[in-house]
Amino acid sequence: MAAARSTASSTALVRRSLIAAPAVGSASQSRTLFFSSRWRAAPTVSSGAVAGAQGVASVNPSSSSSSSSSGGSNGGGRPRRGFFTRVKRGIYATTALSLGAFGYYAYEANNPPDQLPQDPKLKTIVVLGSGWAATSMLQNIDTRNYNVIVISPADYFLFTPLLPSVTVGTINGRSIAQPTRQTVRFGAREVQCLEAEATHVDVKAKTVTFEDKSEIHGSLGTVTIPFDYLVYSVGTAPQTFGIDGVRKHGCFLKELRDAEKIRNRLMDCVESACITGQPQSEVDRLLHTVVVGGGPTGVEFAAELRDFVVEDLSKWYPEIANRVKVTLVEGLPSILPMFSKKLVEYTEHEFSQQEISVLTKHMLKDVDETHVTVQKPDGTMDKMPYGLFVMAAGNGQREITRDLMAQLPESQKNRRGLEVDDHMRLKGMEETIFALGDCTATPYAATAQSASQQGKWLGKRFNQMARIDDLNEAVALAQKEGRWDEVPTYQKMLKKAEKLKPFHYSHAGALAYIGGDKAIADLPFMNGEVSIGGVATFVAWRGVYFSKLFSLRNRVQVGADWLHVKVFGRCVTRE
Amino acid sequence: MAAARSTASSTALVRRSLIAAPAVGSASQSRTLFFSSRWRAAPTVSSGAVAGAQGVASVNPSSSSSSSSSGGSNGGGRPRRGFFTRVKRGIYATTALSLGAFGYYAYEANNPPDQLPQDPKLKTIVVLGSGWAATSMLQNIDTRNYNVIVISPADYFLFTPLLPSVTVGTINGRSIAQPTRQTVRFGAREVQCLEAEATHVDVKAKTVTFEDKSEIHGSLGTVTIPFDYLVYSVGTAPQTFGIDGVRKHGCFLKELRDAEKIRNRLMDCVESACITGQPQSEVDRLLHTVVVGGGPTGVEFAAELRDFVVEDLSKWYPEIANRVKVTLVEGLPSILPMFSKKLVEYTEHEFSQQEISVLTKHMLKDVDETHVTVQKPDGTMDKMPYGLFVMAAGNGQREITRDLMAQLPESQKNRRGLEVDDHMRLKGMEETIFALGDCTATPYAATAQSASQQGKWLGKRFNQMARIDDLNEAVALAQKEGRWDEVPTYQKMLKKAEKLKPFHYSHAGALAYIGGDKAIADLPFMNGEVSIGGVATFVAWRGVYFSKLFSLRNRVQVGADWLHVKVFGRCVTRE
Repeated sequence: MAAARSTASSTALVRRSLIAAPAVGSASQSRTLFFSSRWRAAPTVSSGAVAGAQGVASVNPSSSSSSSSSGGSNGGGRPRRGFFTRVKRGIYATTALSLGAFGYYAYEANNPPDQLPQDPKLKTIVVLGSGWAATSMLQNIDTRNYNVIVISPADYFLFTPLLPSVTVGTINGRSIAQPTRQTVRFGAREVQCLEAEATHVDVKAKTVTFEDKSEIHGSLGTVTIPFDYLVYSVGTAPQTFGIDGVRKHGCFLKELRDAEKIRNRLMDCVESACITGQPQSEVDRLLHTVVVGGGPTGVEFAAELRDFVVEDLSKWYPEIANRVKVTLVEGLPSILPMFSKKLVEYTEHEFSQQEISVLTKHMLKDVDETHVTVQKPDGTMDKMPYGLFVMAAGNGQREITRDLMAQLPESQKNRRGLEVDDHMRLKGMEETIFALGDCTATPYAATAQSASQQGKWLGKRFNQMARIDDLNEAVALAQKEGRWDEVPTYQKMLKKAEKLKPFHYSHAGALAYIGGDKAIADLPFMNGEVSIGGVATFVAWRGVYFSKLFSLRNRVQVGADWLHVKVFGRCVTRE
Repeated sequence: MAAARSTASSTALVRRSLIAAPAVGSASQSRTLFFSSRWRAAPTVSSGAVAGAQGVASVNPSSSSSSSSSGGSNGGGRPRRGFFTRVKRGIYATTALSLGAFGYYAYEANNPPDQLPQDPKLKTIVVLGSGWAATSMLQNIDTRNYNVIVISPADYFLFTPLLPSVTVGTINGRSIAQPTRQTVRFGAREVQCLEAEATHVDVKAKTVTFEDKSEIHGSLGTVTIPFDYLVYSVGTAPQTFGIDGVRKHGCFLKELRDAEKIRNRLMDCVESACITGQPQSEVDRLLHTVVVGGGPTGVEFAAELRDFVVEDLSKWYPEIANRVKVTLVEGLPSILPMFSKKLVEYTEHEFSQQEISVLTKHMLKDVDETHVTVQKPDGTMDKMPYGLFVMAAGNGQREITRDLMAQLPESQKNRRGLEVDDHMRLKGMEETIFALGDCTATPYAATAQSASQQGKWLGKRFNQMARIDDLNEAVALAQKEGRWDEVPTYQKMLKKAEKLKPFHYSHAGALAYIGGDKAIADLPFMNGEVSIGGVATFVAWRGVYFSKLFSLRNRVQVGADWLHVKVFGRCVTRE
């Protein structure tokens, strides 16, 4: 009995022993001392103590004093108690370590170090954009070697895969935004961040012209700056198929403000539908959401919207919740063309259960203030009343990209986007311009995954180029100063560094959320593919996105948002 | 030694004892069983066990088995260990109870019960507005007795005292918004909530006309509904002194969207000031914020802005942070006229330290796109360039209020607002209309505190009125059915119920945040006033606002926001 107690009580004992030392005597006591000290008095114990602690699992019961009655049940309990004690201590230790690490990283994230100023002797890299490609490049480049200037109309990086969750308030917009200034603030040298829109790239003069097109812009007009290298990653404009009504009456789903606009419009529709005397046909119209585009963005938005209706509107707007309808319109024969047939069928089945109508082979023809016109597969037109219209049908080129292509008519003929070689160099401007991400026409899908891999590759490429320059300089200097014995070494290093590997895309799989706590995933596996779908995949989906989030701050915020929605539901207000 | 161990080890023991019951025998063991079970196996223990547990603090060491060597140090340690053990267990118990209570209330908040439907036989109360007065009334009225209809252009209640904190992202806008539907969803009977703007009250016909003036509104035009009672709490429009430029170029600080607009404009100014080539005079203009109105709203906004500059901009925009200037303009001889002279001086001193210029006795004369013109005390004009202009100079009457006053020319002659009697009844319409909050001209300040007290009082008044009706009915029924002995009892109850007490305002003090983790407070105390200011007052300020927050959800969100800003700083993006 007392023997059984010894381990558990050692904690209290040890605490006192440490204070009233050197009173410890017996072997058993000193062993338990080591054990406890691992998590309770760690700072005072040497590393040898931790090694000693490992022997404690087999602590000899006969080494402590006398006995008591319930020996039988204790006998069975002994190894178990040891196990639980270790688990408990493990939990304490893990918690303490996690909290410590969290505190350290949080402090670091909010207290940037000093940086070198920009140096006129270095080459200048101008980066256009602050999306996946640009941000990934900025994270990987060693700014000791270059003056970097970032020009983007958004002063933040947006974690776009979670944008559909913002439309219904599952997460807050700001939770997935990371200021670009914070991204670049931890490199060795200062990076200039300009919140402005690039309007023209002059390939001959090697300059970029930009303009602050936001509401407030000072007296400054356009500004033109020169570059040595240009990282062209401006992304794309949302596709409108040349239909004016799309821009006029619809919402896109590319930027943070798009998601906020959808959320406010949705609640506006709901509130309008609830007003006494609203005609029944108008109630149905207001509560009908049409989504054009059956890619992951459109599908995830439809899914999030159904979740919002089922989990939140049904509680607070019971009178109209069951009248909310969602229609997903896709021109191709199938939604989610990048997923395996099995998962597409699974998604369509789930959507039919969730009352999301999927119209494939339907082409958007027109949008007016209250109706969407689509062409059915048989060629006839269907005019659908709608309250909320969301356009998520892919990408069109930006004006500046068309302008850039027009300057290189020989090399840039692809209407899909900018032609690049396998080193992501813009064809026709291979020496100075790198083009990345959605604005390029590559064999890789226009995804965050591919853009971020390109950015990472380019960041490292810049580092390698700087190393080549350094080595060339070292060779020249060694030759000049007559250090002939060093020259071959440098030349060997140079030869190795000059082996520039082309960009290689490595597909990590495709993931999409389809509502009702279910997700789908196609994962490459042993030269084939594994297709999974369901609740477990949803957990994995969350895990993957959580781990991919950019900063500790974003992780804490998104995690808090998810937890908050689980506990309190989504907030059903219109701002 | 073993004796000393007994209490600490009881935990592990008990766990096993509970599994291997009924093996427990000795008095000491059963006592420790009770103790431990309080926090570890509570569901299986009766209330008697908890009472028994209280004896454990004096557990007799001699009741357990044999001994060991370190008796001396143990002897001194015993009472201490007992104390720490109790503290530890207390912490465990408190944590477990708190988590349990939190879970219960969170579950309840997100899972509303069934409600009675509206009943055509009951009287109808129409409530205009969803601010402090209206929401406080809705929280206190017993909806069993009335059909309640709420009409407000905002579908939520906004905790306005924390709105200045939203302007710089100290807290998220949604954290201080509580959907009105959730406020009324926990009463006995359904309450109709209409997101629409009341445009006309017909005092003769006893009807209200409203219109959905939001962007999306269906085909419905104006709707007119009758009322038995009207709760008129529409608040006020922001003051503009008839200067067109205020509405055109300025930001107000009354609604959630005002705060978001300020935040985006502020970051837009900052980003524009950072662009290469921006003329120095423009940089200074863009970074100059002019706040008109030296009341708590203007002061708290100026304070939050300085915090944002000092704590966040200085880290991420070091090149411009020290050029940000804030000017507070007030027409009266002093800012914060509702605070004691000592605190005003303290605030002015703190503001001068924080580089906030305070211009008292300055009158706003004009605002154009880039300049604010103010009249100085000597009558000359001063034209100040600005980047952000915030108008927080009090209230003007809404159109509908002027329209209402025009219908009652005999009784409503006060230009300050609606005249009410001491029962908050609108003069000229005492039988049917109650007017509350900022739209009235009462001797009480136009504060959240006074409006919410009025709302609470009116909610209870409605309950009392329903009780009077019930008792009158009971008297009539008893008389009709010849139960004459019951009549006097009912009449006595009726007489008591009919003693309607007028509204009485009870001033709880005034609080304001003045930046740098300092706040000021004037608190009534023993017929006098206590004036305090500083960091401790700031802690109290947070505590008071936190406790006054409307719902558990709001509390969790605001708490999380505060904590988050402490750890990671504010997010410096423009949306």
